[in-house]
Amino acid sequence: MATEIPNESIDATGELEALIQSRNGEAIVAFMRLLPPEDTAYTLSHLSDESRTDLFKQLSDAAPELGADLLEHFVDEYTADLIGELEPGQAAALVDEMDSDEQADVLSELDEDEAEAILQEMDPEEAEDARERMGYDEDVAGGLMITEYLVYNQGQTVEEVTRDLHEKAEEHIEFEVRYIYVVDDADRLTGVVPMRSLVFVPGSRRVEEQQIPEPLTVNVHTSLDDLHDLFDRVDLSAVPVIDDHGKLAGVVQRASVQEAIGDRESEQFLRFGGIIGGEELRSMSIGSRAARRLAFLLPIMLLLLASATVIALFEDTVKKLPILAAFLPVVAGICGSGGNQAVAVSIRELSLGLIDSSDFVRVLVKELVVALMIGLVLGVVMFVIVFAWQRNVHLALVLGGAIPFVVTVSKTIGGTVPVLLKKTGIDPAMASGPIVTTVVDLVGFFTVLMLATQMLDKLL
Amino acid sequence: MATEIPNESIDATGELEALIQSRNGEAIVAFMRLLPPEDTAYTLSHLSDESRTDLFKQLSDAAPELGADLLEHFVDEYTADLIGELEPGQAAALVDEMDSDEQADVLSELDEDEAEAILQEMDPEEAEDARERMGYDEDVAGGLMITEYLVYNQGQTVEEVTRDLHEKAEEHIEFEVRYIYVVDDADRLTGVVPMRSLVFVPGSRRVEEQQIPEPLTVNVHTSLDDLHDLFDRVDLSAVPVIDDHGKLAGVVQRASVQEAIGDRESEQFLRFGGIIGGEELRSMSIGSRAARRLAFLLPIMLLLLASATVIALFEDTVKKLPILAAFLPVVAGICGSGGNQAVAVSIRELSLGLIDSSDFVRVLVKELVVALMIGLVLGVVMFVIVFAWQRNVHLALVLGGAIPFVVTVSKTIGGTVPVLLKKTGIDPAMASGPIVTTVVDLVGFFTVLMLATQMLDKLL
Repeated sequence: MATEIPNESIDATGELEALIQSRNGEAIVAFMRLLPPEDTAYTLSHLSDESRTDLFKQLSDAAPELGADLLEHFVDEYTADLIGELEPGQAAALVDEMDSDEQADVLSELDEDEAEAILQEMDPEEAEDARERMGYDEDVAGGLMITEYLVYNQGQTVEEVTRDLHEKAEEHIEFEVRYIYVVDDADRLTGVVPMRSLVFVPGSRRVEEQQIPEPLTVNVHTSLDDLHDLFDRVDLSAVPVIDDHGKLAGVVQRASVQEAIGDRESEQFLRFGGIIGGEELRSMSIGSRAARRLAFLLPIMLLLLASATVIALFEDTVKKLPILAAFLPVVAGICGSGGNQAVAVSIRELSLGLIDSSDFVRVLVKELVVALMIGLVLGVVMFVIVFAWQRNVHLALVLGGAIPFVVTVSKTIGGTVPVLLKKTGIDPAMASGPIVTTVVDLVGFFTVLMLATQMLDKLL
Repeated sequence: MATEIPNESIDATGELEALIQSRNGEAIVAFMRLLPPEDTAYTLSHLSDESRTDLFKQLSDAAPELGADLLEHFVDEYTADLIGELEPGQAAALVDEMDSDEQADVLSELDEDEAEAILQEMDPEEAEDARERMGYDEDVAGGLMITEYLVYNQGQTVEEVTRDLHEKAEEHIEFEVRYIYVVDDADRLTGVVPMRSLVFVPGSRRVEEQQIPEPLTVNVHTSLDDLHDLFDRVDLSAVPVIDDHGKLAGVVQRASVQEAIGDRESEQFLRFGGIIGGEELRSMSIGSRAARRLAFLLPIMLLLLASATVIALFEDTVKKLPILAAFLPVVAGICGSGGNQAVAVSIRELSLGLIDSSDFVRVLVKELVVALMIGLVLGVVMFVIVFAWQRNVHLALVLGGAIPFVVTVSKTIGGTVPVLLKKTGIDPAMASGPIVTTVVDLVGFFTVLMLATQMLDKLL
């Protein structure tokens, strides 16, 4: 029963919870292997926190490589949390089986002591590797590279290489195996040999005779953006990474770069939505989720209160014409949405490298024209609606006339604030929204109330 | 001069414009090859529209493969626009050199006539391929797969295969070459042979003796999400794709899946920001950009006006206590931002497959607890500020007391609307924001004004 293929009609989460409680390691492994890949994330995320920890404890004994694969379904912070609850030996068994680029990411999220305890229990070679990689950021070549690759000395013969390949075939299963990397006695890369070019050569040849010399390389500090652009330009599946001493340090694969770009896009999405700290899974504790959201909302509330002071200045006007109170949030809402569209486009183009922080005027001009067109259309619609509703042509003129101006201001501010923030080094995805909203609210309130005050006689 | 390496101090765009005008194909090719990959997108996006078209006209003669690589820097819609301005012969030269998964994407964006004219001029094999692939969505295996892979009949010998590999090495340079795919006489996949396992076997053996039988496969209709989950689970760089007749149709690579996921994330980001139609580059015409943005803003304005009618109902209250007009946009702003945080988290979890449309209650409960905690903190801060500013304890109580309630409503609505929209098939990233904003504005205005009206005697 336990190893039946789970299907739609079975409660996979309930089934798995039961297996975990019964501590039947083999049945758990069989169940997880039969679970359709598309249901894995869902099932894991619906386990209780205790069961989830228990699952990985049991997998670290029964099938650490499966456990390591499953851990890749979580973000690094969560994996680190989970790993931190296991015994160092159990944790090490799982971490040993992770891809080398994941190991460092996860260990870096732990306390130094916890990480050290796990490193001590790990396979010494894997541990040394992980230590070295923990020195690099996640989004440079050193943090993205894998260290499982095929490397041979330039003096070795093709026969030696092919025999070694054959003997270690099992071990190489997760290697980047399109190329063989050739180094000299000081571990400096001298060339690469495409795997297929070994198929048809006399075994007595030295690998260096087969190599493509001076291959394209990157440095351990090459940024994710530069790597992304590089893989856009060249049709390679992987590029060797050289450290500061000129030695071959690893191989960065196209797929790893694409994955990191995807992760960054989705973190940007959350920050733009006001979720600080990148990722937030529902498995995170309620308290820390509330704290992270508050860190964004509290400053916003203060900014909103600041822009509200403008309205307070015109209390008399509002007293005489209270219907204005109904239109102020509409003006603020339009300005906010219009400004945010421009923010989204600019952030997107900054992250694609289509504009940079020097493009202030260029963005301003382009936004200006679009904003005027949009503003005029919205202004006319506003005029018609206000007139139809309130039968007050002057009020319709004040609101319809304010809209093109405030929309234009919002869009130009929205488009340029991310560019300016980029210059100062503040994260545009996070900070642009609140700044733009506050500024455009101020402009919108002031414009409408000032116009109304000037025309108050006609409005009443 | 023309082939100097462009660096920071040189105006690469200006330089390139000049080369394009001088119609010096060779110099353009040399310049583009020397341009650092990280500057390519920026330089291309800063050319004038005419120069950009002209560049690709010249590249289609001088270096179509370089032109095809450069076209990958644009989104499909823009590439299609650009291709559409070339002669069919020129366009075909570029499309011939594109990756097979890109060809269909771009051709599908063109008018049928234009696409047909280009297909006629293309290499017949490439054209047939492209036609077949145009029948698949971009985000299923059939649309993501490449058709450049190594395929041999099960009856062939290892020697035949290795000789063929050697002879066609040049042609295979952009192939997925980790595996050889083995088919029977009816083109049905019988197994895969890892390239390295050919290195050390007698040439007289038949490839089928070397193959791993019953390899993991996907169907042409397998969705992007399922492919993503699959590659999370298995350590393969590529998986063969089978069509509805059981024949091998292509190979879907891990990198293509990661790239498609990244593209989808970033489109979701734009839709969340209110940019309809996915992508928007500054090279798009002003008119169509304005129209797309209006398509989002106009409904929002109407929704905002609708929620403003609530305020109009309480005109008398506002007349007596006009300072309320200053606080209404603050309440709306807090509710909007708080609701949008919950929207962002739910959209993210829907797209990661961590929750699905049946998780309504689960999301509701989790949001409820977080929202209450946040609401209480914000309410206390609001009370303190309002009291300090207006010295009116009753007004401070009305506003400070309303906040926990309206924040809780906003967050639960924000968290659950994307889940409900997913159920109806409407795009949550696009529609959630406006719906949530309107509803929470209504709730916020009504709550504050109702409380104020009830307590009006004490407030004055």
